[in-house]
Amino acid sequence: MSEADALVVFTPSGKRGRFARGTPLLQAARTLGVDVDSVCGGRAICGRCQVLVMEGDFAKHGVTSTAAHLSPVSEAEQAYAKRRRLNPGHRLSCSSQIQGDLVVDVPSSSQVHRQVVRKALDARPITLDPVTRLHYVEVREPDMHDPSGDLQRLAKALEAEWQLRELTCDLAVLQSLQPVLRKGEWKVTVAVRDARQIIAIWPGFHESIYGLAVDVGSTTIAGHLCDLESGEAVASSGLMNPQIRFGEDLMSRVSYSMMNPGGAAQMTEAVRTALNHLAKDVARQAKVPVTDILEVTLVGNPIMHHLLLGIDPVELGGAPFALATDEAMTIRATEMGLELNPGARVYTLPCIAGHVGADAAGVILSERPDKSAALTLIVDVGTNAEIVLGNEQRLLACSSPTGPAFEGAQISCGQRAAPGAIERVRIDPATLAARFKIIGSELWSDEPGFAESAQRTGVTGICGSGIIEVIAEMYLAGIISRDGVVDGELASRSPRIVPAGRTFSYVLYENPGGTPLQITQNDVRAIQLAKAALYAGVKLLMEHLQAPAVDRIRLAGAFGSHIDVKYAMILGMIPDCDLAQVASAGNAAGSGARIALLDNSSRRTIEGLVRRVEKIETAIEPRFQEHFVGAMGIPNTNDAFPHLEKVVKLPQGKAAAPRAGSRGRRPRG
Amino acid sequence: MSEADALVVFTPSGKRGRFARGTPLLQAARTLGVDVDSVCGGRAICGRCQVLVMEGDFAKHGVTSTAAHLSPVSEAEQAYAKRRRLNPGHRLSCSSQIQGDLVVDVPSSSQVHRQVVRKALDARPITLDPVTRLHYVEVREPDMHDPSGDLQRLAKALEAEWQLRELTCDLAVLQSLQPVLRKGEWKVTVAVRDARQIIAIWPGFHESIYGLAVDVGSTTIAGHLCDLESGEAVASSGLMNPQIRFGEDLMSRVSYSMMNPGGAAQMTEAVRTALNHLAKDVARQAKVPVTDILEVTLVGNPIMHHLLLGIDPVELGGAPFALATDEAMTIRATEMGLELNPGARVYTLPCIAGHVGADAAGVILSERPDKSAALTLIVDVGTNAEIVLGNEQRLLACSSPTGPAFEGAQISCGQRAAPGAIERVRIDPATLAARFKIIGSELWSDEPGFAESAQRTGVTGICGSGIIEVIAEMYLAGIISRDGVVDGELASRSPRIVPAGRTFSYVLYENPGGTPLQITQNDVRAIQLAKAALYAGVKLLMEHLQAPAVDRIRLAGAFGSHIDVKYAMILGMIPDCDLAQVASAGNAAGSGARIALLDNSSRRTIEGLVRRVEKIETAIEPRFQEHFVGAMGIPNTNDAFPHLEKVVKLPQGKAAAPRAGSRGRRPRG
Repeated sequence: MSEADALVVFTPSGKRGRFARGTPLLQAARTLGVDVDSVCGGRAICGRCQVLVMEGDFAKHGVTSTAAHLSPVSEAEQAYAKRRRLNPGHRLSCSSQIQGDLVVDVPSSSQVHRQVVRKALDARPITLDPVTRLHYVEVREPDMHDPSGDLQRLAKALEAEWQLRELTCDLAVLQSLQPVLRKGEWKVTVAVRDARQIIAIWPGFHESIYGLAVDVGSTTIAGHLCDLESGEAVASSGLMNPQIRFGEDLMSRVSYSMMNPGGAAQMTEAVRTALNHLAKDVARQAKVPVTDILEVTLVGNPIMHHLLLGIDPVELGGAPFALATDEAMTIRATEMGLELNPGARVYTLPCIAGHVGADAAGVILSERPDKSAALTLIVDVGTNAEIVLGNEQRLLACSSPTGPAFEGAQISCGQRAAPGAIERVRIDPATLAARFKIIGSELWSDEPGFAESAQRTGVTGICGSGIIEVIAEMYLAGIISRDGVVDGELASRSPRIVPAGRTFSYVLYENPGGTPLQITQNDVRAIQLAKAALYAGVKLLMEHLQAPAVDRIRLAGAFGSHIDVKYAMILGMIPDCDLAQVASAGNAAGSGARIALLDNSSRRTIEGLVRRVEKIETAIEPRFQEHFVGAMGIPNTNDAFPHLEKVVKLPQGKAAAPRAGSRGRRPRG
Repeated sequence: MSEADALVVFTPSGKRGRFARGTPLLQAARTLGVDVDSVCGGRAICGRCQVLVMEGDFAKHGVTSTAAHLSPVSEAEQAYAKRRRLNPGHRLSCSSQIQGDLVVDVPSSSQVHRQVVRKALDARPITLDPVTRLHYVEVREPDMHDPSGDLQRLAKALEAEWQLRELTCDLAVLQSLQPVLRKGEWKVTVAVRDARQIIAIWPGFHESIYGLAVDVGSTTIAGHLCDLESGEAVASSGLMNPQIRFGEDLMSRVSYSMMNPGGAAQMTEAVRTALNHLAKDVARQAKVPVTDILEVTLVGNPIMHHLLLGIDPVELGGAPFALATDEAMTIRATEMGLELNPGARVYTLPCIAGHVGADAAGVILSERPDKSAALTLIVDVGTNAEIVLGNEQRLLACSSPTGPAFEGAQISCGQRAAPGAIERVRIDPATLAARFKIIGSELWSDEPGFAESAQRTGVTGICGSGIIEVIAEMYLAGIISRDGVVDGELASRSPRIVPAGRTFSYVLYENPGGTPLQITQNDVRAIQLAKAALYAGVKLLMEHLQAPAVDRIRLAGAFGSHIDVKYAMILGMIPDCDLAQVASAGNAAGSGARIALLDNSSRRTIEGLVRRVEKIETAIEPRFQEHFVGAMGIPNTNDAFPHLEKVVKLPQGKAAAPRAGSRGRRPRG
């Protein structure tokens, strides 16, 4: 380099250097370590290396410019622009030579490690760094004077052009290598995983490969198909977990496995078949062949995780709840019977403990509580609640056996979230009459037009978020006491309170021409048990950290997305906290799967974080029972809710100790 | 250590050190780096650590000895001796404590890297260093107070007891891990491959694992089952390559693949099925379950190699004869449809070039011409002859298209080596009468009792070694000239010479009551072409090395085992050499597979050697034709055979130039 060389400055990196005139821009960028993408290796085929030249007037004048600091638009660029999209004013950096001083902007879309925006508002962007990348190469033809294997010449090309060394090659690729090389006339695109393994090959230039991030829940399976080159989510799909036919909840599935020889294998087969359907569905939506899917990431609770891997979950059905493995696994998709690209790999996020699964790991990866000084509580409510508490110093996790009450099971008029289900409730403290909203209608039940709007679905029951609200509102309206007893004396002043045996029920909806929707004393008890279990788990972790309060709360999962956090706090599901710091985290487990899919380095991150997590087993913590008993009261018998009381006027009055019968009823599964 | 400590000397290593009284012998051995085997980790279960204590009189007196320099025979040793074989006078070094000065002999059977004796007389012993080893461990039980995966606790035990770190685990092992740990009551034996991968697991102590070394020839498949712990070959088996139904020779199989869509897959399926039969057969012979086979090594020519791996060999059917890969491969046995242990791996030796396969690599590994200053020529005669020439400085290889004449094909009365086939021939120069031996009889045809002895089989034809001898003897007796023409003038003096059209034939056997066995002019020509091709290949390599002569010759393969090297030289198949330095190498390719099976480090050796081999492609070497033409004469038109002439009186006379019709007829396949 000399002063006679041209000065080139790349933005946004600010990297700069002097280069001999005639140097291709891409080469200059690489010399300086500027992040510019390229799949085709500078052959003006892929168009990934587009840059915007900010100085000099050549961009405007194109080939006719005389004062150009950059070479005129080349034939290769013109040919590319005819075939594919060359952004206005952009140049292919591989095909443009430096002729004078330049400022060159590398747009985000031309960076290898670009940032992918996540939908959730407060979520950090994902750094795109996929484990598998495409590389286009031209391979030397075989020569009898210097015999060598086709694979070895391919490897030489990958080393010369992409600095990829000591690659292994899948047998399936080797089996198709010779015809593919010849069909592509010695030009091929290969997918290299982790800079170590050749896992797929296509003749000629192959544009895109895809990855599938899947959250395997016990009820639903949700997947997102992402373009591994752009990071973009191109299709999403969800379906019921077909294992439901073997048992509604997790424990009944474990029981099925215990009772039926081959039962675990049946459930493994069912969920893998569902994954194949899911993959076909998203591929069809995105109009790509399913064989372009090269990577899958999976999250799920420990039982789903084990069944997916073909491991009988029987050990997870009883103490000491031993996982077969708590580490992340990378296996071939074919080993799981997945019909994707034959070279596709599956990465399962690590499990944390017997009841805290890869889904919780996904939540941690998505929320990254370890990155903040603020003490963050994350709860993912399902049949088991998975609870993570921590900050940049420590991370704790446990699971708590909430049972299925929050999902509408064990509730007399409960149902899954579906059109017709009550999801919002307000009770007038004077009349004790309720108004509500159902899924499928935008109107409250006391607004004009509700009856018509609800006609299609009817009012069919109450879903999880509705149950939270109705019981919290019953408490605010004085219908139930702090200890959850329905006040029978109110029956004299409101027809809404009706006797039911030795207890009383609250009539939520009269339901003209049908059975009234009532909240029974048992329903209240079921919710009290569930929320007490959740709260006790949280309290246990807080106690381990000696934290009197938490700074932030995130509610993960579908349930967390739908409940009104204020009511969750009034009911005492979660501890007191500034309500502005309480929010839904959406499907954080699924987001974690997507991060692991798009950002290879995040896998090492979550594997490291999971090793750091202090695992608390609620079943053997003597204090759990104490917290559980205290948490039976609404919001809580022992704890104050100062932040909440600034916003909501809570009824006064002490809760009685819960009755013996409630104590220790701890559903598992 | 102090002078008060006891001095312990281990033989044969001579390693010595002082140890505190009470130190177990095994621990002392390990401290000194003495090679003592142990699978059970010092628990007196495996019996691998047996030693003979040479000094002190305790061994004779056992527990009653008072002057013992070694602790008395322990209960553990007594229990072991009841269950299994404790060699007379031997002790378990894990259970014997040092009490005074000792000389301890570690017998070869107790060494990890023991030497395995090979059958061939001049062959080096194999160093036992199998890629997969058994390790017995006790695993900590799961503990809810400190949750961890079963796999992680197994890994910890393997690290603590065997210093094995960062192991991966096959999915199949993970799937069976939990029941196996519990069945073994937390004591298990695991097979760890290459100190990196857990590939199999058994409850409790598992005694032995096996490996299978297979030479896949185009005609026969031969396999040896070896105990990977002792190195011992425990069973052998051979079967016909079922691909023969798709084509007798290699080229017809490649043609089958070209002509029939799916033809390659059919042949792959056939050979893999045969491997499964072979594995079952040797396992049955050795009375071990086929699931105890954990490692397979394969050698074969390039077409067999490709078909085994499921690669269509079509590219090997024509120039430039490109291999899909010329490197060694390690793949899972399940990927090849082999029904062994689910964790079994297959190692294929590297191919050298399009016509020089993994079988040639096996030959090199078995013969190690690179270890000697003497220039060694190795020829493996099949349909293609594979030729290796070299010494510690250089290694060259080529293949030469001999065609199937040496195997009895293209010979009018030729047949495969089978009972009834003529394998030895002597011709009386005076009478021109032949005497011969057939396979299945120890008698020469002119010895009393031959007729009876031959009655069972009859005299059915002539096999490869017989053809070599009869033509060489015809030359020595003057029946054919140096240029291979049957001398019709002899018909007047012997009824053995009969006219056949415009040429003459030699009646080898009158065959009372059947067709006479004759050697026709065409038969002589076919052998001349075949031997000329072989010799020309050899000559080409010698020329590349500028070597006027070779120091040693090894004839590999079944053919090489049966021919009389003197006749091979008289015929001019091989160049002149001291006959004492010419020998059969037996099934050297198969030996190479066995070495690669038992000695992991030999794999790196052969991979490195193959990279060093200079590959000569006879098809594009202009000098090949010249050498070929010169080699048509018997022994050779251009070259002298001074060593041979010291032993055999060769007829005098110049050979005419071969006729144009013979020139360039070069069978391939």
